[in-house]
Amino acid sequence: MSSYLVLIFCSIIIAVGAILFLVKFIFSQEKGTKDMQNISSAIKEGAMAFIKRQYKTIFSLALITVVIIIAANYFGNLSKGSGTASKYAWHIGIAFVTGALCSGISGYIGMYMAVNSNIRAAAGAKKGLNSALTIALRGGAVTGLAVTSLSLLGVTALFLIYGGMSNSAVLIKEAPSLLVGFGFGASFVALFAQLGGGIYTKAADVGADLVGKVEAGIPEDDPRNPAVIADLVGDNVGDCAGRGADLFESTAAENIGAMILGVALYPVFGWKGILFPLVTGAVGIISSIVGIFFVKADDKTDNPMSALYRGYIVTTILNLVFLFLIIKSMFSGTLPGGGNINYLYLYLCAFCGIALSYAFVLITDYYTSYKYRPVKSIAEASKTGAATNIITGISVGMESTALPVLAVSAVIFASYKFGEFALPNISNGGFYGIAIATIGMLSSCAYILSMDTFGPITDNAGGIVEMSGAPEDIRLVTDKLDACGNTTKALTKGYAVGSAALATFLLFFAYLEQVKTILGKPLDSLFAVDIGKSQVFIGAFIGAMVVFIFSSAAIRSVGKAAQYVIVEVRRQFKEISGIMEGTAKPDYANCVDIVTKGALKQMILPGIIPICAPILVGVLLGKEAAAGFLMVCTITGVVMALFLNNGGGAWDNAKKFIELGNLGGKKSETHKGAVVGDTVGDPFKDTAGPSIHVLIKLISTLTLVFVSLFS
Amino acid sequence: MSSYLVLIFCSIIIAVGAILFLVKFIFSQEKGTKDMQNISSAIKEGAMAFIKRQYKTIFSLALITVVIIIAANYFGNLSKGSGTASKYAWHIGIAFVTGALCSGISGYIGMYMAVNSNIRAAAGAKKGLNSALTIALRGGAVTGLAVTSLSLLGVTALFLIYGGMSNSAVLIKEAPSLLVGFGFGASFVALFAQLGGGIYTKAADVGADLVGKVEAGIPEDDPRNPAVIADLVGDNVGDCAGRGADLFESTAAENIGAMILGVALYPVFGWKGILFPLVTGAVGIISSIVGIFFVKADDKTDNPMSALYRGYIVTTILNLVFLFLIIKSMFSGTLPGGGNINYLYLYLCAFCGIALSYAFVLITDYYTSYKYRPVKSIAEASKTGAATNIITGISVGMESTALPVLAVSAVIFASYKFGEFALPNISNGGFYGIAIATIGMLSSCAYILSMDTFGPITDNAGGIVEMSGAPEDIRLVTDKLDACGNTTKALTKGYAVGSAALATFLLFFAYLEQVKTILGKPLDSLFAVDIGKSQVFIGAFIGAMVVFIFSSAAIRSVGKAAQYVIVEVRRQFKEISGIMEGTAKPDYANCVDIVTKGALKQMILPGIIPICAPILVGVLLGKEAAAGFLMVCTITGVVMALFLNNGGGAWDNAKKFIELGNLGGKKSETHKGAVVGDTVGDPFKDTAGPSIHVLIKLISTLTLVFVSLFS
Repeated sequence: MSSYLVLIFCSIIIAVGAILFLVKFIFSQEKGTKDMQNISSAIKEGAMAFIKRQYKTIFSLALITVVIIIAANYFGNLSKGSGTASKYAWHIGIAFVTGALCSGISGYIGMYMAVNSNIRAAAGAKKGLNSALTIALRGGAVTGLAVTSLSLLGVTALFLIYGGMSNSAVLIKEAPSLLVGFGFGASFVALFAQLGGGIYTKAADVGADLVGKVEAGIPEDDPRNPAVIADLVGDNVGDCAGRGADLFESTAAENIGAMILGVALYPVFGWKGILFPLVTGAVGIISSIVGIFFVKADDKTDNPMSALYRGYIVTTILNLVFLFLIIKSMFSGTLPGGGNINYLYLYLCAFCGIALSYAFVLITDYYTSYKYRPVKSIAEASKTGAATNIITGISVGMESTALPVLAVSAVIFASYKFGEFALPNISNGGFYGIAIATIGMLSSCAYILSMDTFGPITDNAGGIVEMSGAPEDIRLVTDKLDACGNTTKALTKGYAVGSAALATFLLFFAYLEQVKTILGKPLDSLFAVDIGKSQVFIGAFIGAMVVFIFSSAAIRSVGKAAQYVIVEVRRQFKEISGIMEGTAKPDYANCVDIVTKGALKQMILPGIIPICAPILVGVLLGKEAAAGFLMVCTITGVVMALFLNNGGGAWDNAKKFIELGNLGGKKSETHKGAVVGDTVGDPFKDTAGPSIHVLIKLISTLTLVFVSLFS
Repeated sequence: MSSYLVLIFCSIIIAVGAILFLVKFIFSQEKGTKDMQNISSAIKEGAMAFIKRQYKTIFSLALITVVIIIAANYFGNLSKGSGTASKYAWHIGIAFVTGALCSGISGYIGMYMAVNSNIRAAAGAKKGLNSALTIALRGGAVTGLAVTSLSLLGVTALFLIYGGMSNSAVLIKEAPSLLVGFGFGASFVALFAQLGGGIYTKAADVGADLVGKVEAGIPEDDPRNPAVIADLVGDNVGDCAGRGADLFESTAAENIGAMILGVALYPVFGWKGILFPLVTGAVGIISSIVGIFFVKADDKTDNPMSALYRGYIVTTILNLVFLFLIIKSMFSGTLPGGGNINYLYLYLCAFCGIALSYAFVLITDYYTSYKYRPVKSIAEASKTGAATNIITGISVGMESTALPVLAVSAVIFASYKFGEFALPNISNGGFYGIAIATIGMLSSCAYILSMDTFGPITDNAGGIVEMSGAPEDIRLVTDKLDACGNTTKALTKGYAVGSAALATFLLFFAYLEQVKTILGKPLDSLFAVDIGKSQVFIGAFIGAMVVFIFSSAAIRSVGKAAQYVIVEVRRQFKEISGIMEGTAKPDYANCVDIVTKGALKQMILPGIIPICAPILVGVLLGKEAAAGFLMVCTITGVVMALFLNNGGGAWDNAKKFIELGNLGGKKSETHKGAVVGDTVGDPFKDTAGPSIHVLIKLISTLTLVFVSLFS
């Protein structure tokens, strides 16, 4: 038993070592010219001020929530005559607080590293592409490793504390359900972090673009634009802090979902089935570290993406090997009913999961890269103006949901079958197959997260280079990296939705398991939620609707916050004379302040909706209705997130395609139409879309935490 | 027994009498000036040419489908060892053909009446508002009455022929399931009619607007625009022919769904439970006729809407009285287990349905009228350009899904409970409550449909008046009516989605009933579809996705067809000199021809998707997966249709609000932004949205028809 635990803790120690090495490496790099440092400090200040205020709001909300959780679980279980009501309540409450804190720390690390790496990547661009690329990726890697190892540490530690490895089968089986509080805490903070950050980044971006680019006709990242620092701050708080918290909760929630499934298979695998997700997480961290050190680009290359892909492939190959060894070691053995576990089929499940992550990368690339038909069709449609650009973009976004859904369906189907083959005549065997596929997909998570945070660092580096008026050859380097960063951001978003889709199913199943436990049914019995019942239908109907009103609220928030920016930028252009001539400096700080206040005010409403809706459905209409809500809300959420992310990404690159000189190039009427599409896509892909990833898992963990309240 | 049948046939005879009277009234009206007649003839010609070609395509596709239906049902049932395979196959096949033909006739009548009423309404405007209003509404009423009585006649006749009123309980119970072919045939034709017409009307509209209004700067309906006749033709083929077929299949499908539920309650109600929907339909026609003759407006009024509302209220009050009498007469009696049927609760169900139709009208009005916050916020956002207009519009559209979903949920919940109260201890009693609510909502269908067709007639009348250069005071009359027509179009779309949402649940239940019959289980047993099963989840996932790709395909089709128009209009402006000066006439006919070809070509793909997807899911993944598909596809479809319809309507009226002189008025930058939103909204509200209504019911009837094939 203990050797697997040793492996987990060793991998955490190795991760800490790697993080220290990378931090030392980054802080030993040059910080560039005085101009660059001034800009970087302004970004750092703005970002820190935002996150400080944001965390104050989020943790006040979390405090209220933890009280509700403890009370709900105490009285909910008490009224059902449970003798362990008080234990349940406190364990889940403590797990919630731990999850929320860890999620907050993850976000903070992501942002701290980003604001310190951007200036060094900008300075590194002087030495050449490889130097800048290495700094940016390693900056991202600190976040990637910190987030994944923190999640692993948190879940493992709580699992041990709650008796997950004790000698009592009752405690072992109970522990994972107590962990759901951790997942909920993580999702809770992540939702608000992603919403607040997402609103901030796009409000600043839309505001800066609309007044700067469109009205005043100055280029992007031009120092004369008063909102330019706010825009650069936005990349950090939205993409780094938000995404750090997002991916923290992803790994946590998915591990917990898989562990609850492990409990359902306790008669077959014992504690091994429960610990398996954590062991895989541990080796995934090690593979990712190796992958990160494999990234090296030729200074002359036009496409730094291939260097990043190389690291990804190395990580995947290592994971394929490790997963085989782990599955063989943990799941060889005999079945309770006689015969052997066919562990090779379980390995096939993991393989399916890894294949799915590649499928998502390819599909996302197809729909968001200007090399292919979809983006080209949007660019083409811009020739007849903004309206046809928008119509085509929406159509492309909606179309882009087809292949990912089919890919996820195929993997669910196949891994379910493989699970059944591996564990013949064992109920829930097929579901465990799906759990292993999910774990396989998540095994590369640390690497993916590093690539993800790489994006905003290069974006910022480009901004700093542009603003400080650095020479053309340095700009060329950061431009290449920036384009590459846009690709990685799109791909990792695809990965995040894909894994969320799989995890959804897992968590949904975990919910049904939990309901069975509460109803006192044996774990391997069926708790059927009949979709022919009217309350299930109503729950499902409301579930689909919640995705729409959440998206509505998130998108509207950006619009509202952007209005503040637009008004302020126009005011500065009007009142501060000499800005356009470059003789007077705009008041950057005031812009930053206005967006901060606006974003925090606007994040509350969209955050409240998905928290209250499922609780109301569960309390008023019962457990089965909550199951219907959960299922259709997550399904619609996945499809909507795909639509918003891919649509937004496609609009962005259609504009880039035109800016490269196609179809009339910059400043043509076609370009103007494409700019409108890009602006519309911004809140789609950077606010609403990524928040839906979190929403999906939030709702799953939330229903698990509040299930004892449901009638 | 026979007295109810007499009632049904009497109401059909009364409807025919009313139709003849109205037709005579309309054809006796003046046809206006020579100029007006020329324009009207051009519209008529274009519309007839389109519908002729369209029907050729649709009926070729229907021919292939009927062969597949007969073969599938024959071999599907044969392989299950059913002795009645051949009977089933032929009955369903014949029903399909009948349904398809009736649906086609309904569409034709709708269009024929519209193209003949528009010119007379335009001429009537000279005499005053009331005259024009009466002509337009009565023209619409011919369609409304023809469609509903044709549907009633078709369903009743087939029901009788298939032994629905025979002495054999087996035949009586079987008849409604044989009728599903009728519903499927109707939906099949309606889907293509709505798609083809919807693509036509918006391609012409977008094309005419983009080149005419935006590029050349000439007003709407200006005779110098080569696409102006095509645009006017579009109103007829999209809104009249398409909607006629759409509402035909609505009433048919919903009646059949309710009848299948009646079969499930055969032990309680006997044949009365099955015949009830048809009896209600019959009295609904009579109430609507009375309502129509109550409409009379003051020539001086600013708001002709109130005259239309008056007729609607009269219809509703009559229905409330009639429904009470029918429910009392048909459902008084004793329960099989002892005790009396509490028919007053059943009446409450019908009341809930009628209340729901009012709720939908109010909610739709709130979200699409410029008197309220949502539309005003879109107009406000246009101040900062097209991008913020689009972002706000999408946000409003998504938000607008909340209240309708809650209203439908509340009615499902309440009528289920009332059904249980009325029929204590009877299984499926609650469901019959929902069926009665649906029937209650549909009782005003003929009147609603009359209002709906009224819209495009006034739109066309306005166009004819504008193009023929009629004096200002006549234009004022048609402008008022046109605004009123836009409102009725939006409201009836809301009504259509609302009734589709209720009917969805009915048809979903009918599917589960059908599966039980095939599995040989007793009708009142439960066939549980467990949402925890992986294949159900996959079916559900694909169901949600199909709504997105269908919308994508429908929207894209408009974009593609509009491109043809844009190219052609630009060519004419360039090549035919003197158009802009008014010295040369544009080649209207060529534009009409180009849109016709384009629309028919583009309607195929979006039409094929929703037909193939559920069959594939059912055949490959089984009956339960098909149930999951059905449920989530319909739920997502309803929510998506609300988003598309309301969003589109809101954009339209935000533009109108600005054109009334607000926020800078016409030709301001704000107006330009709002025009982009209006253009984007066009395919939302007139192509994709209304097609989804049909899609929802098509999928339900289709799965019912093909259920014997599913594994």
